Amino acid sequence: MSVYEEMLTLAEDAKEAAQVMANLSSGVKNEVLLNMAAQLEAQQAVLQRENLKDLEAARARGMAAAMVDRLELTPERIRGMADGLREVAALPDPVGEVTGMWLRPNGIQVGRRRIPLGVIGIIYESRPNVTADAAGLCLKSGNAVILRGGSEAIHSNSAIGHILQQVMVSMQLPQAALQVVTTSDRTAVTELLKLEDQIDLIIPRGGEGLIRFVAENSRIPVIKHYKGVCHTYVDAAADLQMAEDICLNAKVQRPGVCNAMETLLVHQDVAAEFLPQIAAAMQRAGVELRGCEEARKYVPKMKPATEEDWYEEYLDLILAVRVVNGFESAREHIQQYGSLHTEVIVTNDYMASQRFLREINSSVVMVNASSRFSDGNQLGLGAEIGISTTKLHSFGPMGLEDLTTRKFVVLGEGQVRS
Amino acid sequence: MSVYEEMLTLAEDAKEAAQVMANLSSGVKNEVLLNMAAQLEAQQAVLQRENLKDLEAARARGMAAAMVDRLELTPERIRGMADGLREVAALPDPVGEVTGMWLRPNGIQVGRRRIPLGVIGIIYESRPNVTADAAGLCLKSGNAVILRGGSEAIHSNSAIGHILQQVMVSMQLPQAALQVVTTSDRTAVTELLKLEDQIDLIIPRGGEGLIRFVAENSRIPVIKHYKGVCHTYVDAAADLQMAEDICLNAKVQRPGVCNAMETLLVHQDVAAEFLPQIAAAMQRAGVELRGCEEARKYVPKMKPATEEDWYEEYLDLILAVRVVNGFESAREHIQQYGSLHTEVIVTNDYMASQRFLREINSSVVMVNASSRFSDGNQLGLGAEIGISTTKLHSFGPMGLEDLTTRKFVVLGEGQVRS
Repeated sequence: MSVYEEMLTLAEDAKEAAQVMANLSSGVKNEVLLNMAAQLEAQQAVLQRENLKDLEAARARGMAAAMVDRLELTPERIRGMADGLREVAALPDPVGEVTGMWLRPNGIQVGRRRIPLGVIGIIYESRPNVTADAAGLCLKSGNAVILRGGSEAIHSNSAIGHILQQVMVSMQLPQAALQVVTTSDRTAVTELLKLEDQIDLIIPRGGEGLIRFVAENSRIPVIKHYKGVCHTYVDAAADLQMAEDICLNAKVQRPGVCNAMETLLVHQDVAAEFLPQIAAAMQRAGVELRGCEEARKYVPKMKPATEEDWYEEYLDLILAVRVVNGFESAREHIQQYGSLHTEVIVTNDYMASQRFLREINSSVVMVNASSRFSDGNQLGLGAEIGISTTKLHSFGPMGLEDLTTRKFVVLGEGQVRS
Repeated sequence: MSVYEEMLTLAEDAKEAAQVMANLSSGVKNEVLLNMAAQLEAQQAVLQRENLKDLEAARARGMAAAMVDRLELTPERIRGMADGLREVAALPDPVGEVTGMWLRPNGIQVGRRRIPLGVIGIIYESRPNVTADAAGLCLKSGNAVILRGGSEAIHSNSAIGHILQQVMVSMQLPQAALQVVTTSDRTAVTELLKLEDQIDLIIPRGGEGLIRFVAENSRIPVIKHYKGVCHTYVDAAADLQMAEDICLNAKVQRPGVCNAMETLLVHQDVAAEFLPQIAAAMQRAGVELRGCEEARKYVPKMKPATEEDWYEEYLDLILAVRVVNGFESAREHIQQYGSLHTEVIVTNDYMASQRFLREINSSVVMVNASSRFSDGNQLGLGAEIGISTTKLHSFGPMGLEDLTTRKFVVLGEGQVRS
């Protein structure tokens, strides 16, 4: 069988299984998830044995220690996957919700009812826990899922997938509702991305390179975000101690993630006071600052920022700093260099806060809070399947509801159109 | 300037104009639409003069009379365009709606606020009224719009676009918020479809060929439907007089549109009674029937249906007829041959109605009503920009709300993440 035929068969099986998943009750779906959690913990030894194969191969290939660490399935991480599935089981089921129903003048009732998307493909890298996390969210929302992780985690992903599938089988549910692509052939992804009649959505999770590859090669709709160049704008009317706390948290609490702050914009009226204050705080936290010319007047030891710095997602203890002469300049900077991810204003000026919320186009806009809250869990969506910085279907962090769509239901009593 | 540069400039101008449109008040947008309506009527003579150029060119090329008719701008059709814009002005503005706001345990308030998509491209054929209709919906929802009609209507579309643009200019609004692509170069569409950084959504409207071309060549998200193979399933528990009324309306009231019925499925228990009844009614209405073997036992003069008939969107007075042995078979038929557009069950059996609404996957599912109600206006969405039979973003008829997305807004009081 060619890779194309293999992927087509797998996707057609998934499509058939999706019919069954779409009509499962929440009770059954929750039982599936709880059983999966229990089995992951019960089969810890198997998981660690298979994981060891990936770890050894990675070390033999000379993979960097930090990367090898991300690959490892410790007992704690296995418990983490299991707990993740239990949390998803506890979330409300979005399927079946009627989001509105109204009566037309001719007496027909029209409503919209939430249904699963169908078949979802997840293309991801590195951390094997994504296998269980993504599967849990897709199954809870009534979808079938096709999982394709990185080749470096293939034994771990296969082992997790096998355990989860066995739970499906033991409950007389279609095992094709959850499939892990195990072929090491790299064309498998390219072939999958062509199957627009079988797969409804592709979510790539990983580095910008992977995401661009998927976006450029897919005929299936893709929900994605390339990067998070998040801004914090300290307004003239900011409480400067609050601004310091928020900026510090946004930059250093976890610098390697997409909702960390990358650029600080400071209103010129508070630059003389705030810049030396934040520079000292950032320095204590080990953050390297790169400033515009104006900013360097107040903090001369700052490195000069280049044009490239404004576009940069450092994912590191580095911060670009720019003085702006007001709201207008801050907005223009964000518009030109931003990534539509998350932007924050720190201000006590009511009008400035409203204007920021209205005029800034990013998927998450905040007043007086750390950009680090920009994820599904923190915003109250439950768990997060990803973040979208394109506007179609979802914009911002995505939860269970974003894995569904709505169909129209019409209740008539014999009406015809005149 | 190459076609690529021309399209890029146009799209970048649109993106800039979209910023302005996004923040216009409903009052201003409604005034724009009402002024546009007035100007279309005031400049009827200009429109008819330009339209005549298209009509003459079409006749000179030997275009079929029915097609030439679709192209014509009569005084009545010009009034129709103007009234369409007035209706859109009267619809509620979806922009700015907060669709929910909740408090997190740490005290931050999280909400979702409706915003325009940005820049929308409409690629369409034939009827010049689409120029005004689509522009009205895009502008009301705060978007900029790029319109590319067929070359056969180029003078009419340009004239309409020019009149609408003059209204923008007279109100000191950016005319780039509404642009008609007038170059006759066919590569213009291909170039437009590459501009994913400038254009947020493409909606193709026209025949299946145009839609496939757009879907296959676009790097921008496309919302589309290829065809409407709509089914009516007459259940064993149907009121057969109601079934006749609904089927007749669904097939003959306007056979050339996508929500007309193409295939009739009849439960075997009522086939002996219903098939001769509906066959007689359809014959009186001039409908040709093509039946399965079983159906032809009851109505022998029916032509035999081939496998191809089940896939067919006739858009004509032809109906495929099949006898099924129950709900399961009806569902399987719809799943295999349907287009996810609209399906109807006629029944008085409560359980059957609920099962149909739940298990049929199409974008619109109806009980005891004609499939002809499956459009945005009839379902109460106001006007309709198109229909989607793919599940991402929108599924089914699309109104103003479908031209928007939602961003997250977060109101804090200095919260940081621990």
